[in-house]
Formats: sequence, structure tokens, C-alpha cells
Amino acid sequence: MNPIIDLVADLGEGFGAYTIGDDSELLEIVSSANIACGFHAGDPDIMAATVAECVRRGVGIGAHPSFPDLRGFGRRDMGLTADEVRNDVLYQLGALNGFAAFHGTKVTHLAPHGRLGNLVAVRDDYAKAVAEAAVRVDNELIVVAQEGELAAASRDAGLDVAIVGIVDRAYQEGGTLVPRSQPGAVLHDPTEIVDRTLRMVVEGKVRCANGADLDIAVDTLLLHGDNPGAVQLARRIRSELITAGVHIAPLAEVMDAKKKAA
Amino acid sequence: MNPIIDLVADLGEGFGAYTIGDDSELLEIVSSANIACGFHAGDPDIMAATVAECVRRGVGIGAHPSFPDLRGFGRRDMGLTADEVRNDVLYQLGALNGFAAFHGTKVTHLAPHGRLGNLVAVRDDYAKAVAEAAVRVDNELIVVAQEGELAAASRDAGLDVAIVGIVDRAYQEGGTLVPRSQPGAVLHDPTEIVDRTLRMVVEGKVRCANGADLDIAVDTLLLHGDNPGAVQLARRIRSELITAGVHIAPLAEVMDAKKKAA
Amino acid sequence: MNPIIDLVADLGEGFGAYTIGDDSELLEIVSSANIACGFHAGDPDIMAATVAECVRRGVGIGAHPSFPDLRGFGRRDMGLTADEVRNDVLYQLGALNGFAAFHGTKVTHLAPHGRLGNLVAVRDDYAKAVAEAAVRVDNELIVVAQEGELAAASRDAGLDVAIVGIVDRAYQEGGTLVPRSQPGAVLHDPTEIVDRTLRMVVEGKVRCANGADLDIAVDTLLLHGDNPGAVQLARRIRSELITAGVHIAPLAEVMDAKKKAA
Amino acid sequence: MNPIIDLVADLGEGFGAYTIGDDSELLEIVSSANIACGFHAGDPDIMAATVAECVRRGVGIGAHPSFPDLRGFGRRDMGLTADEVRNDVLYQLGALNGFAAFHGTKVTHLAPHGRLGNLVAVRDDYAKAVAEAAVRVDNELIVVAQEGELAAASRDAGLDVAIVGIVDRAYQEGGTLVPRSQPGAVLHDPTEIVDRTLRMVVEGKVRCANGADLDIAVDTLLLHGDNPGAVQLARRIRSELITAGVHIAPLAEVMDAKKKAA
Repeated sequence: MNPIIDLVADLGEGFGAYTIGDDSELLEIVSSANIACGFHAGDPDIMAATVAECVRRGVGIGAHPSFPDLRGFGRRDMGLTADEVRNDVLYQLGALNGFAAFHGTKVTHLAPHGRLGNLVAVRDDYAKAVAEAAVRVDNELIVVAQEGELAAASRDAGLDVAIVGIVDRAYQEGGTLVPRSQPGAVLHDPTEIVDRTLRMVVEGKVRCANGADLDIAVDTLLLHGDNPGAVQLARRIRSELITAGVHIAPLAEVMDAKKKAA
Repeated sequence: MNPIIDLVADLGEGFGAYTIGDDSELLEIVSSANIACGFHAGDPDIMAATVAECVRRGVGIGAHPSFPDLRGFGRRDMGLTADEVRNDVLYQLGALNGFAAFHGTKVTHLAPHGRLGNLVAVRDDYAKAVAEAAVRVDNELIVVAQEGELAAASRDAGLDVAIVGIVDRAYQEGGTLVPRSQPGAVLHDPTEIVDRTLRMVVEGKVRCANGADLDIAVDTLLLHGDNPGAVQLARRIRSELITAGVHIAPLAEVMDAKKKAA
Repeated sequence: MNPIIDLVADLGEGFGAYTIGDDSELLEIVSSANIACGFHAGDPDIMAATVAECVRRGVGIGAHPSFPDLRGFGRRDMGLTADEVRNDVLYQLGALNGFAAFHGTKVTHLAPHGRLGNLVAVRDDYAKAVAEAAVRVDNELIVVAQEGELAAASRDAGLDVAIVGIVDRAYQEGGTLVPRSQPGAVLHDPTEIVDRTLRMVVEGKVRCANGADLDIAVDTLLLHGDNPGAVQLARRIRSELITAGVHIAPLAEVMDAKKKAA
Repeated sequence: MNPIIDLVADLGEGFGAYTIGDDSELLEIVSSANIACGFHAGDPDIMAATVAECVRRGVGIGAHPSFPDLRGFGRRDMGLTADEVRNDVLYQLGALNGFAAFHGTKVTHLAPHGRLGNLVAVRDDYAKAVAEAAVRVDNELIVVAQEGELAAASRDAGLDVAIVGIVDRAYQEGGTLVPRSQPGAVLHDPTEIVDRTLRMVVEGKVRCANGADLDIAVDTLLLHGDNPGAVQLARRIRSELITAGVHIAPLAEVMDAKKKAA
């Protein structure tokens, strides 16, 4: 069987008259979307337009909930309790579901944004809060995460977890990312990034920072679109994956295919 | 068959450290709740607590969406387009559904708040936008309204409409309210209010401002709780309805009973 | 004496991670800035950075207050009372003064933004509210407006009024703009715009839509920077004004020079 | 000379339709007000009304800036940089000055609210940021604080510091408060509170938690009004201070009197 992978990017991150990223370009490349839900970005009109566009193109709809921090774009720790995190996720996930329901479909996955995304990987109270919110709203929801507390809590809650591959970051043993504070944490050479990505998807391996090979099984790849170079790279990754015989499909389809293969 | 009626009040209208009304008192009186969804009042923590309390007591959960106007408590016309209204309602209705889903239940009804509530009665573009949002999210949703554009648009969309009786307002021929700007628009005498309410529910009639009797079929009564006198009056209305043999039940049950009786 | 003119543009209109327009380009062109004050755009960090940059370059600091409408970028009528408008302007003007005071300087002018800017030209209650706020905070503040209610109310309050010339709009008799809804309202040909602008400043005349010449005395010209073409045009206007011997100076200096000349 | 003291309370802490505390009661008791500036509470209309009432009664106007956290009432650490704190304080202080200027007066003092108030006592970067904002806006501004980093940074910046006495909290050696987590941290007996307060003001001494007497020189006393008992206690403190011959005056007058006496 050919390998199968989902391509995902953060979309709908404008607010009112403001825009971030080139959504129309990205929507031609990805098979799933992390859609901002109004707390770090996004407003009801942008959410409506983004969901409509995803439906039209067959792009999977994912919730991208955040701390309530428009001014900080969700990048700041707001000192919330786990209960507040659960309630904020219920609110945002529910809100996005409203727009999906309008089109007779539903939210397929959930991927926490920014600082919340960082913290759910290491704080088990936050991780449990998010997993609990997700499973109660829809136990077929796929949680997108790297290995960590959220992935563990989500599996404990009975949810499918899709492991996200970060194409432009160095990995260390254990499958975690080299922290941004360390040299070489972020990859810049497009060809190197493309080659690593292909190997990650086709062979299930990635060369670690220490030179050893790491086994890795990714279900989706996170692409960026916040500058022209990023969009170009995303487009190239898609193109070379297809050339290599990889099937690109929305996350739900990827998870189904893997279950059947297993 | 004994008459059946729902009692409803606006709940969860605090924000952060702020509170409005005595929700714990009202929750002992009503059978349904119009729950603020974060645009004119309410935040995710308050919504979570209010929904949990409704579930615990068997009180029906209703969405109380508003214009996005925390500072104005939803009482101002924000000059929105009908598309913006539809998107704002989808967002708020969806968000509340998140909290209902957390408890394995769902939002039963929708009742627009404040100025939005006023405008959907007379603006058909807004009415259609709200009805469209409601029916797409859940075609079993009950729309709570007085007769007017929203009631008409909701019926056109195939939704059940519950007619709300306003216990402390004078009616005029045609079933609309005497405008607040006119003398006698608001009733103040508790005994008069209780007597009118009983007659409205038991006999299906209300004495109009011009002295004539109006046929009126109400499915729910809107009670207030923003001051101690209002809570006392609400309690008395409930008590005298029960004494008169009226069955008080959540809105979904009321609508079912009326369909079976019809 | 050579003609003297101020060049002004809207600056600091980002919010958090969002940006609108190229402030660094515009700051090389203008002599005054309309700085967003947090209600339609701008946050304290952006205001601080924008004011600091204006001080460093000798660009005059102006308040650009708006209706409280981040999502609508201040373009919507929020249905405020005149008292609310006055309070919102006091708040925003005061806030910007905080950043000016930090640098030992002060806000020089006030120019209402967006829909508020449109309404103060025609609603005398709003106009009086804004003029009253301005004169009480600083009776040396210059109010920037086209002829209309705000200009009249500001003069009545004892404030200096700077008339703003709109370089890319057609004028009609009486000195008002041809409404956008009419053909020819907006000029697009850069050379035509530059020539009109020069004539407006040097000769004090502009050809009206009906072909007649209108006498016009402008103190400042509003330039745009929201796309590369706009910045290029703004740069060309500045350059040709200088070539024509026009002295470009911050608004306070322009007003002083005109008073001395008078 | 008779002792002199200022009485201060947090005022204007409503938002839109919401209220907290009984401002009209407190305004009859205090000589100065900490006025919310829109970030944790307060909106332009409430600020306008509160400042107008202070001016009418001769109550001193103080800025009560906060972290930007309406939902959390400023009680949460938002993870801000010191630069962001300085900009937020400049914005809020400036905004309040707008309303003071409207009445031909100015803000007399600055007292950070909630979590910001806690953190400036112990974080020197935040303390310096606040002191720098204050002194640049107005070097006659009085900073209200307990002994700690903000008091030190303000004195370094050349600002007058008013030491605030907390009437219902136990002190420990060194003049800091017994942490709330320890038993006996909060005093509840009204008579004990009144007696301690009188001794603090008249003798300049307070009995510490360990039984020793602490020398303390307070310039203002913080009173509460968030429940009927608190207002009653505040009224009694005022009354007994007057009976004891203490002169109650706005903070600026208190500081002047102390300078002359020194």
C-alpha cells in the first residue's frame, strides 16, 4: 500500500479587517485546516468563510482553540486553571461546530494553538481538560498532537490521536523537538526540509540531531503559509510527496486507512 | 387535559467577576433558561456553570444570542449585515452546544436577546438569517419569539416556534405589545399580573389595552429576576399556576404535548 | 511667501500580531500622523512604538479616535449617544497623550476615524461632543476636518481647524466630496492626482466635478499607504510638492505660519 | 499638629450594565478614589461619571491601572513583559487624565490594581516600568504603595510615595502583610480593626502578628465597599478618626501637610 498523509495548516487567522497568511494559496495545498476560533484570531465572519471554503474544496475542518488572547495572538500563558481551559475549549470547539453544522458536516480534528499547544504537551491537567472537552463533544474527534501529555490523555479518553510531523524542525531522541533556544533547532534549507519530509512519510524515519535515526509515524504534516517562501515550500512538499506516490488525504481518511491497514 | 406551560428566564448574564440577577433563585422557578452566549454577557466559565446547573435540575437549555456588545449589554443596534447576524448566531449557538454536549444533552431552544430580539421581530433579513442558522445547526431546535418576522421565517424554515407570553406588558390588537413609549405599556401590580398570566395560560385570552379580549396561545412565559421583587413575583406566578392545575414543563415537553393534543 | 502644507496619513493601525499599511515607508513621507488609539485599531504597544517613531522623526502626533469597533475597523455606526462619543474620545485622546507625555511632547491634532469621521461632518450632536472633548483636554489642539459640522463646532469652541484635502477624490461645489456612490468620485490616474494636488496647494483651487473652479484652502493632505501603489503615489506627491517650492511641515507649524501670514 | 490621613477606595469598577460595589456610599466616606481605567473594569462612560462625581465632592482622583483582563478582573498574571506593562500603564493613566482634564483638574495619584499591584511590590522590572510611566506623564503624581519594589523605584524616579495602610490585614515585622495563606492574615472584628486603624494613624504604630509593635507611617487607608458590612465599617472608621481629631483630606493635601511638617 502506498503511504498516506494529511497536510494541514493554520487558516482563518485574520480578525475583522486584518489578515495573516495567504489562505487562498494554502487551501490549494492542504487536505486539512486548523481553523482559528475567535480567541487568538478569527471572528465569526472569517470562520464562516473559511469553513465554507474548506467544504467546497473537501478540506478537513479542524478546531484550533487558543487561550483568550487576541492582542498576544495566543502566544502568552494567561495563568488559567484547567477548568478554565476546558471551558474555553468547549466554547471554541462548539462555535466552530456551528459553522460546520451549517454545511451539514462536522469538525474532524482538534489541534490546540500557540502557547496552549505548547502547554498541553507538558501539563497533564491542561491535557486532561482538553481531552475531556474533545471526547464529550464528539468521541470521533481526532486530536492532533506531538507525543506528550495531550496525546496520552486523549488516548486514555478513547480518542484517536494523529501525530503531527513538523517539517522544518530538528528532532531529538524520544521524538521531541530540539528546543528553539538550541542551535540547529529550525531548518532553513528547502531541499533538506523536503528530503527529510519525504523520508519521514515514506520510510517512517527521521535523522535526529545526534545523527541517529528515529522511527516516527506521522499522520499529518504541519505546513506554514505566513510568507511567500513558506507557501512555495509547502507547494513543493505537496508536489514531491505526490511524485513519490504518497496519497494526500484529509485526516479522517488517513486515520481510517491506517486502521484498516493495521 | 390540563394546560401545560414552560417558564423561562434569562440566565448566566454575568461576566467574569460581574453578576446580574439571582440565577440560583430563578433556577428553582423556571423550567427553561435563555443562556447568554458571551456576546452581550456570559463567559465560558459562566456558561459551563449555568448549563451544568440546568442539567442537574432538568431545566431546558436555550441559546440567548446577541449582537457582539458587552459594553452595551446587547441593547444597541450595531449596524450589522444579515450575514454577520447569521454568523454571530451560528457562533454563539454552536458555543452553547459545546457545553450541552459536554453533559450529553443539547440546546433545546433559541431566543435572541435584547436589540437583536427586537429587530428579528420586524426585519425579515435578520429573521431569515437567524432561522437559517437555527435550522442548519439543528432542525429540532425550537425558536422562541412573539409573533413577527422571526416566527414567520422560522416556520418557513420548518422549525417549531414557541410563542412567548410577556407577563408584565400590555398587549394590543394583533397580539403585539403596547410600545414602552405609551402609557400603561408596563404592568406593575403583582396581582393584576398574576391574574392576567393565569387567564392567558388557562383560558388562552388576554384583555387588550383597548378593553377587547385577544385570543393568545402561549407556550412559554418570560419571567424576570433582576431584582428581589421580580423574583418574588416569578415565584408567585409559578405557585399560582400549579395551584390552578397547570403543568409546568421544559419547552420541548410543552411543544410535544401540544402536538399530541392537536 | 512659499506655500506650506502638512502631509498626514493614518498610522499605527495594527493590533497585536496584525499589521495594516507600511508605517515605516509612510513615516518617511508624512509630516503628521493620525495615530489609532485602540478602539478600531492600535494597542498600547503599537501606540508606544508609533509615537516614539514620530518623535524621533519630528512627525506631528495626532489622535485618530474611533467608535469602539475592532472587528469592524471603526467603519460601522454603533448607535452611540453623543455623551458616549464624547467619553470615548476623551478616553482615546487621553490615552494617546500618555504616550506623547512619555516623550515630553503632546498630541498636536485630532482627526476622527472612519464612520465617526463621516458622522461628525453631518451630525451636530456628535460634532459638539468631539469639539467639547478636544477643547477641554487641550485648547491648543488642532481639529482636522473637512468643512462640516465638526469644523463649525470646533471653531465655535475656540479651536483651530485644519482643513484636510483629499487628493484622490472629486469635489463638488461647496467644497464637499462627490459621494462614493457616484461615478468619478474616486480618482485613479496618478498624474491627474498629483497635478490636482499641486494646484490645490499652490493656487488654492480645485476643478469641480461640474467643471467649475472651486476656491479651497487646505492645511493638510491625507495620504494613504495601504498598498504599494498608494505609497508610491504618496512619495511622488511629496516629491513634486517640494520641487514646486512648497514647504512641508507638521500641522502645528503650518497653522502658525498661516496665522502669521494672515 | 493633628494627624492627617487620606481615605481611599477602589471606585468605578463596573462595566457597561454591570456594577461592583456601592460607589455612591463610598464617595461620602473617602477623600480619594482609585478609579478603574478600562482594563480590569471601568469603561469610558463609567470613568466619566466617576471622575465627575469625584470633582463635585472634592475627592482626589487616582488611576487604578491593571493588566488587560476584564474576564479575570485583573487578578491573573498575564505573562507581560515590563515594556508591555509600561505601555499599558501609560495608556490607562493617560485615558483617565482625559476625564480629569475635561474638568480642568488632573489625576493626583496612581495605585496599581490586583495582580499588577501584587507584582510591582516584588518585581523590580515591573516596578521600574510603572514608576517610569508615572514620572514621565506627571512628575507630581503620587504613587500609592506598600513598602516594596514600586515604592523604591518611584522614590528613585523622584516621585512622592504615599504608604497605604491596610486596615483589615495583619502586619509582620518589616511592615509587610501576613500572607493570606496564613491563619490570622485577615482581621474580621470591626472593633479590633477600628482600634488598630486609629492607633496606626494617631500613634504611628501597629501590633505585629508576633506581638511586637511596629512603627508605621501611613498616608492613606484603603477601605472596601464591596458588601454592606464593608461600607458600614468604612463609615465607622471615618467617624472615629474624626472623633479622635484626625484630619481627613485628599492625598495631595496629606502629602503637602507632611512635607511642611517635616
